[in-house]
Parts: sequence; structure tokens; C-alpha cells
Amino acid sequence: MKPTLLLAGAAALAMTSAAQADEGMWTFDNFPTAKVQAAYGWAPDKAWLDRVQAAAVRLTGGCSASFVSSSGLILTNHHCVASCLYDNSTGENDLLKNGFLADRRTLEKKCPGQQAEVVTKISDVTSQVKAAYAGLDGEALTKARDAKFAEIEKAGCPDTAMTRCEVVTLFGGGEYKLYTYRKYSDVRLVWAPEDRAATFGGDPDNFNFPRYSLDASFLRAYENGKPVATPQHLKWEPREPKLGELTFVVGNPGSTSRLFTGSQLAFEHEVRLPITVAVLSELRGRLIRAMEESPENEREGLDMLNGVENSLKVYIGRMKALNDPAFTQKLADAETELKQKSKGNAEIGDPWATVQKAVNAYRSLYLPYRFTNPSGELYGYAESLVMAAQERAKPNAERLPGYTDSALPLLEKRVLDEKPVYPWLDELMMEWSLSKAREYLGVDDPDSKLLLGKESPEELASRLVNNTKLADPAYRKQLWEGGLDAIKASDDPMIQYALKLIPRQRELQQEVNAQYAGPLAIAGGKLADARFAAYGTDLYPDATFTLRISYGKVAGWIERGKEVPFQTTLGGTFDRATGSPPFDLAPAFAKHEKDIDPNVTYDFVTTNDIIGGNSGSPVIDRAGGVIGAAFDGNINSLGGNYGYDGSVNRTVVVSTAAVQEALEKIYPAPNLVKELAAK
Amino acid sequence: MKPTLLLAGAAALAMTSAAQADEGMWTFDNFPTAKVQAAYGWAPDKAWLDRVQAAAVRLTGGCSASFVSSSGLILTNHHCVASCLYDNSTGENDLLKNGFLADRRTLEKKCPGQQAEVVTKISDVTSQVKAAYAGLDGEALTKARDAKFAEIEKAGCPDTAMTRCEVVTLFGGGEYKLYTYRKYSDVRLVWAPEDRAATFGGDPDNFNFPRYSLDASFLRAYENGKPVATPQHLKWEPREPKLGELTFVVGNPGSTSRLFTGSQLAFEHEVRLPITVAVLSELRGRLIRAMEESPENEREGLDMLNGVENSLKVYIGRMKALNDPAFTQKLADAETELKQKSKGNAEIGDPWATVQKAVNAYRSLYLPYRFTNPSGELYGYAESLVMAAQERAKPNAERLPGYTDSALPLLEKRVLDEKPVYPWLDELMMEWSLSKAREYLGVDDPDSKLLLGKESPEELASRLVNNTKLADPAYRKQLWEGGLDAIKASDDPMIQYALKLIPRQRELQQEVNAQYAGPLAIAGGKLADARFAAYGTDLYPDATFTLRISYGKVAGWIERGKEVPFQTTLGGTFDRATGSPPFDLAPAFAKHEKDIDPNVTYDFVTTNDIIGGNSGSPVIDRAGGVIGAAFDGNINSLGGNYGYDGSVNRTVVVSTAAVQEALEKIYPAPNLVKELAAK
Repeated sequence: MKPTLLLAGAAALAMTSAAQADEGMWTFDNFPTAKVQAAYGWAPDKAWLDRVQAAAVRLTGGCSASFVSSSGLILTNHHCVASCLYDNSTGENDLLKNGFLADRRTLEKKCPGQQAEVVTKISDVTSQVKAAYAGLDGEALTKARDAKFAEIEKAGCPDTAMTRCEVVTLFGGGEYKLYTYRKYSDVRLVWAPEDRAATFGGDPDNFNFPRYSLDASFLRAYENGKPVATPQHLKWEPREPKLGELTFVVGNPGSTSRLFTGSQLAFEHEVRLPITVAVLSELRGRLIRAMEESPENEREGLDMLNGVENSLKVYIGRMKALNDPAFTQKLADAETELKQKSKGNAEIGDPWATVQKAVNAYRSLYLPYRFTNPSGELYGYAESLVMAAQERAKPNAERLPGYTDSALPLLEKRVLDEKPVYPWLDELMMEWSLSKAREYLGVDDPDSKLLLGKESPEELASRLVNNTKLADPAYRKQLWEGGLDAIKASDDPMIQYALKLIPRQRELQQEVNAQYAGPLAIAGGKLADARFAAYGTDLYPDATFTLRISYGKVAGWIERGKEVPFQTTLGGTFDRATGSPPFDLAPAFAKHEKDIDPNVTYDFVTTNDIIGGNSGSPVIDRAGGVIGAAFDGNINSLGGNYGYDGSVNRTVVVSTAAVQEALEKIYPAPNLVKELAAK
Repeated sequence: MKPTLLLAGAAALAMTSAAQADEGMWTFDNFPTAKVQAAYGWAPDKAWLDRVQAAAVRLTGGCSASFVSSSGLILTNHHCVASCLYDNSTGENDLLKNGFLADRRTLEKKCPGQQAEVVTKISDVTSQVKAAYAGLDGEALTKARDAKFAEIEKAGCPDTAMTRCEVVTLFGGGEYKLYTYRKYSDVRLVWAPEDRAATFGGDPDNFNFPRYSLDASFLRAYENGKPVATPQHLKWEPREPKLGELTFVVGNPGSTSRLFTGSQLAFEHEVRLPITVAVLSELRGRLIRAMEESPENEREGLDMLNGVENSLKVYIGRMKALNDPAFTQKLADAETELKQKSKGNAEIGDPWATVQKAVNAYRSLYLPYRFTNPSGELYGYAESLVMAAQERAKPNAERLPGYTDSALPLLEKRVLDEKPVYPWLDELMMEWSLSKAREYLGVDDPDSKLLLGKESPEELASRLVNNTKLADPAYRKQLWEGGLDAIKASDDPMIQYALKLIPRQRELQQEVNAQYAGPLAIAGGKLADARFAAYGTDLYPDATFTLRISYGKVAGWIERGKEVPFQTTLGGTFDRATGSPPFDLAPAFAKHEKDIDPNVTYDFVTTNDIIGGNSGSPVIDRAGGVIGAAFDGNINSLGGNYGYDGSVNRTVVVSTAAVQEALEKIYPAPNLVKELAAK
């Protein structure tokens, strides 16, 4: 149960021993070709990398994917399209439960809020950004930096309808890169298996292996109402993986904390993680019980519960890692080594002390900063509408990140796209978040009083959710287009509530920028310089939900003395099924048991270094063919937020062979089979 | 929010600086008279201590109390009688909500499972017990020790109808004492205010101060259907407390861990507390939502939710203390000092290494040991019935603790007393505990399979709860009296389930005894010897839910630079009320607002060192009069499990003055007022 994680991270990277093989979420402009060549006798060349980059898709919902046909067909995970299935479901037609197949293109269904993006260019803007904030600190620094981001992004992508520009902070401020994306804001659902096929084993099996999960789906990118032409797609390769074969995972790992200093790790361990685990566990309990109340609740709450349980497992895994003294000792040793190597380097100074001071300040700000933001879709709409109206009234360079000209189109799409809102669920989320705010801030705290006034969390949540009109997309559109005047004139209670809270949220953000984010940007730059000086520039930065490539191989591992085989087969599903949820067979599996080839590889594991956000990433072989879609890590991968251990950290993949078998025999989809097979 | 706790504990006790003033939960046979005399210019003599001991009551429900009239009247907290109010309530007459007053004695209501106990004698049996296990270790040791306990207890209390004997382990095995109690197994409810008067501020205000809580109630001890004569009662002293006056708290602190070694603290911090906070938070969420489903659920779930929220706050407070590096450093320093003082003492050896080894073994056993015990009243009945039947078939000395002749009468009372069972609540508890077992043990673990078979937690809980007859006290009586034959012949599914699980629970208990409890008993003895050698015998042992006395004074404290006054007044309630739960006024308070003297002291704080189990303890002045009942600690008291800091750790007390005002004006009870005033 308890992972015995070993150190990875920057210090270890300098060595080239076998132990650090396969570590890293590498940027495409700094791929460790020599290292891969040395380890595997082969490495991709520039042309290979370019081809793969052009086929790699980021889904703004928080996942990764890839083009797999010349007509914009996108392979990703089922759990990455669950929200889309959910948003397109009704009580009569539960797409999540029943699965979905569009027999013809006109039946493909739009996914609200979802956008597909392909990186077309990466340029270094480090010197521009650093020059913009040279000599500054605190809030002045973050303002100058954000203004420069907005300027660079606007200049880089004058056409916001087809492109999106994003300046990415790497190495915590060591480098700044401009990523340019070709974007596709019309993404539609093509195929998804039954939910139970994808979530067989449910939360108990999540982050575990062996797995028996068909966590795969297809989307399609559209433009002007037509499928997008994607000649750069990856080759669909529905074959068995071979033990030991070289694999690449290409996707967008969301975030890691491998470059954290000791004081940042202490904050995680002592403050953020314990609070997060406690409050999410309570939310989980509220959701589980609420979903037992009716079949409607069961359906309507499922997507949220899955998200909460997944996050909770991640945070509990991180707590375990930081509660393992052997693990944290190695992180501390790496920091000590870097400090020693940097000693006497006046350019670097003592960024660790800067971070420590910033973290200490953040400890005082953390509770109000975290808890003055109520949860719920409807409050989220209100906040976005109010903030966008206020920010749009300013020049581009003075706006907060997230409201600049380059960011607004996606925000607008998210706010205006039509999707169902379930009032009971929103009320539950608000009630929970407000009661947790009162608990952690204290009853007599001014922020508690601001949030609640004289109402209880229950009364306030009920009044706001049941009287707002924000569930209506037409009303949201009216407020978006009406701007600040419309917002101010609105008598909607949720809008009024957001108007009341936002000044305090802005004040807290300013404090955080001044005392924490600003100093951290400076220290981050110095720490990156220290690493480059000590270990050279062949390093990978912490994950930032931008495109990365990891290399590794198909391999099982040893868990508490026992070998875990590298793959499962479709036939194993029937042995594992108990008949009771979440180990009940998906109906189509039960129906087609006799047709299914039991020996086809179902899920398999590789040593690739991934993390949340990589879900849906294509797993690619040497020849550039897709042999699977990454959908999970094993339980030992949860400490991977802080460090990678190739001996036990595994990526879990659903094989294209199993998807092919499903499309042929379980969920017959002859048109899709044909499209995937086309050259 | 974050308590900055300072060290207390054994090492610090050796010093006599002001910082350690007021620390300690002292046994009555080792009261620190000289220390109190030096600090306060007065100390109680033997006669004073004997009088107080004779009036001090332990409630087997987990609380403390005291006799306050000559007719068996018992003062305790409202939250200590909440279960009794709850068990005596129906949908039509919600005693918890409405409060209760027995106008005449015949209306006083029995409290199921509750027993009152008064210590009549404390004798040292250390040498007998140590001799019984000399030269043994592991399970052999715990068996020999437990057999000796059973023998001593049986010999000490031949009359189990009126007396109860208990051998208590002090200093983790340094001393063994036989406590003899006069017991009263018929305890009835006399008076309780409305729930909202006691729980004004609810969970948000729990463990906080200022408080406005009437957390007081009266019970009465009966024997042979008549009130017990208690001439030894304390004097009812409904007066204002004076700032700085000397106070004594006499009660039964449940458990502390101040003598834990570093490896035990690490286990708490790394394993037990994180798991406990996560699983209890989820239970809290399930309960909150379930109680919102109907007024019946709201009423029927309240007692459980209050208990869960109270425990959770305690565990979160402990996590915070152990997440405070300054706090844990001082605990570590104390251990280092004791090790140094013990160096070269061959008699002591290295008990720290013994503890470390035992804790390491326990780490492997902990998950199955914790999770193979499903929750719920009905499963609890089944387990008690099966275990009791199996154990009663053995000679007294061979039985497990809890099933010896001295322990059986209370167990029998608990199993057979009539009380309501709410199937939805039992189902919720079982479902939760079984799903957490599967989560922490893993789906493929043999213990998970034993617990669940092929059923889901939901299916199994529903089948067992809805088909068992154990809610019927007559059926429980039949099984209790029928013994092992009746148990084996029973087709009750809950009994059958307990029969299936118990062999594994016994096996795990044996493993825990062999690898953990046995070695700890030896090491505990050595560690106590080390302390006695280093610091003398004027020490107090960790709390054990046995009678203790703590001394201190009425005093506020400084919280984040601000002075917290030492008391609140009844009038303050009306200022704090918002009208929304849990800050809505109790109806009787609203009704009598004009009659209530706003200046009467409501709640106040003292420096006395207490912990959970002390609830209901009389707060006694020099003259031996009761001036309040302790009902809570402040937020800084939560780290008190590991160490006491007199500068911020406070006991929270409801004043007898406020109770008097309530009995005169808010809940008029002239007979009680008269009884309390009688000499």
C-alpha cells in the first residue's frame, strides 16, 4: 500500500546511471536525444519529433489527445469526454451510462466548453520578459510581467479566431516561452463506450494495476461546420505492445512540484494537503449520499464525484509520499547538494531564503485566499461575468491574467456554451464550500462575515441557487455582451453576491502577488540559474499543462516482492467481474462475451514519466504509430508530483488493440474502423 | 488559527519554572501538594481530596460528573446526556430539541447503557502484575498479564452487582493500580435544557472561546428503584468565578499520548491521523447530507454527527500540532534528554529501540486491524453477542479483556438495554466503513474479500441491516442467555456475518499482542523507570479514563496578540445570535430574554489541564464548592494530547451561576433549585 519512492528530480538528473533512466517530461525544443540513444540504441530525429508535435492535441478541458485520421478524428480517454457525455445527456437518454456512437457525422455532438489545440511554434521570450521586470519585486513585478505576457501574446496571435498564444513560465521563472497554437473551438463527440466499460473497478481500481478499463473515446475537430483536415495525424496501430519496447508519451502534464524548495514542500505537507484531503473527503461523502437519493441524482452527480474521488486519491498519494521520511530525505539531500554547488556564486545569492520568506507570508494569506471563493457552476458563471466585465474595461496590458485579449475567447466560450446546470448539485457545492470557509476562517473572521452575512451556509446557498437566472445561457449572453453596465444593473442575486466578494478577492490576489508570487518569480529564476550552472541545461522543467514528451518502455514492476505483469487481457475482465458495482460487467461486454477474443491486450504499463493532464496522451512506438492512450498512473506514480522512481512508477495505457476489438465486436462501428484503417 | 504550542511532557516536568505551572492530570494518590502550595499559597489536604474523590462520578458513556445533592443528583454536561435524550425521544416528542424536566421523580427517565461509578479505593498491584509476566514477551506476556488482571479484579470485587474492579495500566506499564468502584447501573435523566441552548454556535464554536453554551444537565443515580443517598456530595455554589482564583477539575481524562516516543509520534503523524481525518471527513459529509433528507433523519442522525464532528476537530487539531515543527522539535528534545540521562543504565537498556521495532510491526498490521471491524450499532450488538458467547465458554483467566467476570455486567447492560435503532443510520455507517475498508486494504486484499465476498458495500450493508432481528432487545436477550448454542443456531444474517469475521479479528488481535502490545508493555515499564530515575516519582501518567485532579486558575489568554477575556455573560448570547442555525436562539432564551440577568457569567476559562473524557467534570473552588462544569477546551488545547502549554491551553467551563439562572428563569425548575440549595 505504501509506495517506497526513490528520489528523482533535478540533482539526480545530472547523473547518467540506469536508475534515472526514463525520467522526465521533456519540452519538444530540448529533447534528450543523446540520452535516449544511449539507453535504447535509437532516438527520434527532428522530423519524427515535428510530425508527432503536429498530431498532438491539447484539450482545454484538462486532457491530452492526438489526431488519428485525416478528417480531424481525435483519440483521447473516456474520462476526458465524460463531461461532454454528461452535458449531452438527459434523464431519458443517459449517454454516459449507455455510451455513444455517431453513425454518421451529422450526429456527432458538440462538447460544451471544449477546445482542441495544436502547438505550431515555440519561441524563447525569456530576455524580453526578464527585461520587463528587471529591478522590480512584489506586485510591481507581477504587474509588469503580466503586462508583457499580454503584449507578447497579442502580438503573436492577431487572429484569435484560429490561433491562441500563451507565454509559459518554465523552471518557475528561469525561462519564458511563447507557445503558439492552432485552435479548434468546435469539438464533437464521435464514440464512447458505456461508462462501466471505461470505469470498470471504479474508484477502488483507479490508480491501481492490473486494470481492465476501456478508457478510450473519439472526438472530432470541426471548423465552419466541417471536419478539419488533419493530414499530419498519427498512424493507428492496433497491435499488441511488446515487453521492453520503447514507447513515447506525448501530451500535456498538468503540474508537478519537483523543483520545490524545502519550505515549499513543508507548506504542502503541513498546510495545503491536510486541509485539501479533509475538505474533499467531506465533499465526497456529501456527494455519495446525495447520489443515492434518486436515479436522477446518481446520473447528474457522477461526473463531479468521479472528479472529486480522482483528485482525492492524488492528494492522499502525495501526503503518503511526503509522510515517507526516506522519500523526503532524498529531496532534502538534493537541495543540500544544489546549495553547496551554488555556494559563493554571487549571481545566485540565496533564493532559498527568498522562497522561505515568501512561503511564510503565504501561510498567513492562504486561508482567506483559498476560502473566499465559493464553489459551484453558477457562482463560477457569476464570477467570470463580473470579472470579465470589469477587466475588459481596462487596456489589455493592465488586465489580470485570464482576461487578456488572448485569453478572453476561451473564457467567453466557457461562459456562453449551452450546458445543463443541476440546481441540487450547485446548492450542495456552495453549501459545502461556504461551511468549510466558515470552519477554517472561523466564525468571527471578517471574511466569514463577508461570505455569509447573517445567513447560514445552507440558507445562503439555497437562496442564491434557487433565485439566479444564470443557468440560462441567453441571460449569460445578455450580461456578457452588456458589459459592466448590464452587470451593475442586474438584480440577479448571484451576480450581486459576486460583486460583493470580488473586491476582497482582488485585494487578496494583490497581497499574494506582492508577498508571494512576485518574490517567487525572482527566486525561481535564480534557482533555475543555479541548476543550469550545476547540472547544465539538459533539464526538463516542472509540468505546466503544455506539450511534453516522455520516453520509456513497456514493463511491469515489483510490488512488495511480487511481480506485477505488464499487461492484462480482455478475457480477464470476465474473471474479475463480481456482478456488483463497480465490478459489474458493462452490458455490451456481457452480451458479446463469446465474440470477444480473450487474449487481446487490454491495458498495459510503461515506465514513461507522466502526471495528471497527460490523460488521453497517445502512446507512440518508434515508427510513430499509436499503440495506446495513457489514462492513469499506478499507485506509486502519485509521489511523482515530487520525484520520479523508474523502478515502480508506471503509466497505465489502454491498448489500441483493445479499442479496435471493441469497435469491431463490442460496440460495432464499421465506419470508424474504416476511417482508422485508411492511409 | 494555527496554535503555537510549547512543550510540556515528562522532561519539562522536572523543572519548576512558571512555564510548567498548572500542568498535569494527577492521580489522587500522588497529588503534587508542595507544588500547588508553592504556586498558590494553599493546597488541599488529604481530607479535602478524600471528600472530593467520594463525590466524583465517572459515567461509563465516556464522561465525568459529580454528586451535587444528598439524593443522588448528578451534575454533568448536556452533551454527556445527549444520547440519553436521543434514546428517549420519538418523532412526536423530541427531548433533545425541546429539553427535558422531570417535575417529579417518577418522571425521571432511564439512560440506556449508562452507569455511574465512584472510586472507593486505589491499591498498588504493580509487583503482582509484573511478576506474572516476568521473563515473557509478545502474546505470552499479554496473556499472562490479562489473566492476572482478571484474577485481581475478580478477587477485589466479589459483589459485581454493587462494585466494579479495574486494573489500570499507568505510565504505559510502569505501574499497575487496582481501582475499586461503587457502581450505580440505574441512571436517570432529571433535567436538560433545549439542545440549541447547549449547542449554540454548533460545530463552528466547538473548541473555541468565547462560548455561549449551557452545556449542563442533571442525572440521578438510582438503586432498587430509589434515589441513592449521597451525603458526600459537593456543595452547589452558584457564584461568579473570580479572575485568578484557584480551581480544581476532577474527572476522567480519556487518553493522552504525552509519553509517546518519537517512533510512536511518527506513526500517529504519518499513518493514523491522516487516515482518520480522511475517513471521518467523508462520514461527516455522508451524515450531513443524509440528515438534510427529512426531519426524522435530522433528529435521528444528530447525536452521531455531533460525535463525528467533535472527534474530527480533535484529530485535525492533533495533526496541526504534529505539523508544527517547533512543537515536535521540543518533543524530540525531551526524548533526547531522557535518553542522555538514561545512558549507561543497564536496567533500562534501550526501550526506544523496542518501541521502534514494535511500531514498525504495527505499521504492517494496522490497516487490517483497523478495517476488519465494520461500524454500526447492529454489527456492534452482533460482535458483542458472539464474542461474549465464545469467551464466556472459557475460564475467567483465559478470556480476552472486556469479557472477564469483572467486565461482563456492563457489557450485558449495554447489549440488553432497550434503545432505538435507526436502520438508515446503521446502513449508512456499515456502507461507509465497508467501502473505506476496501479502499484502504485494496480490492484484491484477502481481508477485503472476507468482508465483502462478491457483494458491494452498499448491497451487503443493506442486506444485513434490513434482515437482522438484533434491533429487538428481546432477541438480543434470547441470544445472550442462550450462549454459544443459540448463537450457532441463529440464522440472523448479522450474527452469521460476525461469526465469519471474528476468527480473523482474533487472529489480528493475537498478532498485535505478539508484535506490538507485548513488547510495548515491557518497553513502557522501562521508559517509566527511566523517567522515575531521571525526574523522581512526582510525575503524572498519561490519561487512562480514570480519576484525576488538575489544578489551575481562572484566566483568559493572548491569541494572535489579542487578549481573550476569561468569561462571557448570558447577555452576550443575544448579541451573537444571527437567527440562522447554529446561531439561532433556543426558544426559551428568546421567550425569557427580558427576565434573564445579562450580567451573569455564562462560560469561563481556566488553565486546568484536561482532555476529552473530562467533559462534565466539576470545577471546584478551595472550599470544595462546585462553581462550574468543564465542557470543552479551547482550540489550543487540542495539541494537549502531546503536551500542555499553560500560556494558551484553556479549559472551558459552564458556570453554576448560569445554570442557576437557567433553573430559575429560563427553564423554571423550583424543585431542583430547592434540592441544590439544601445543606
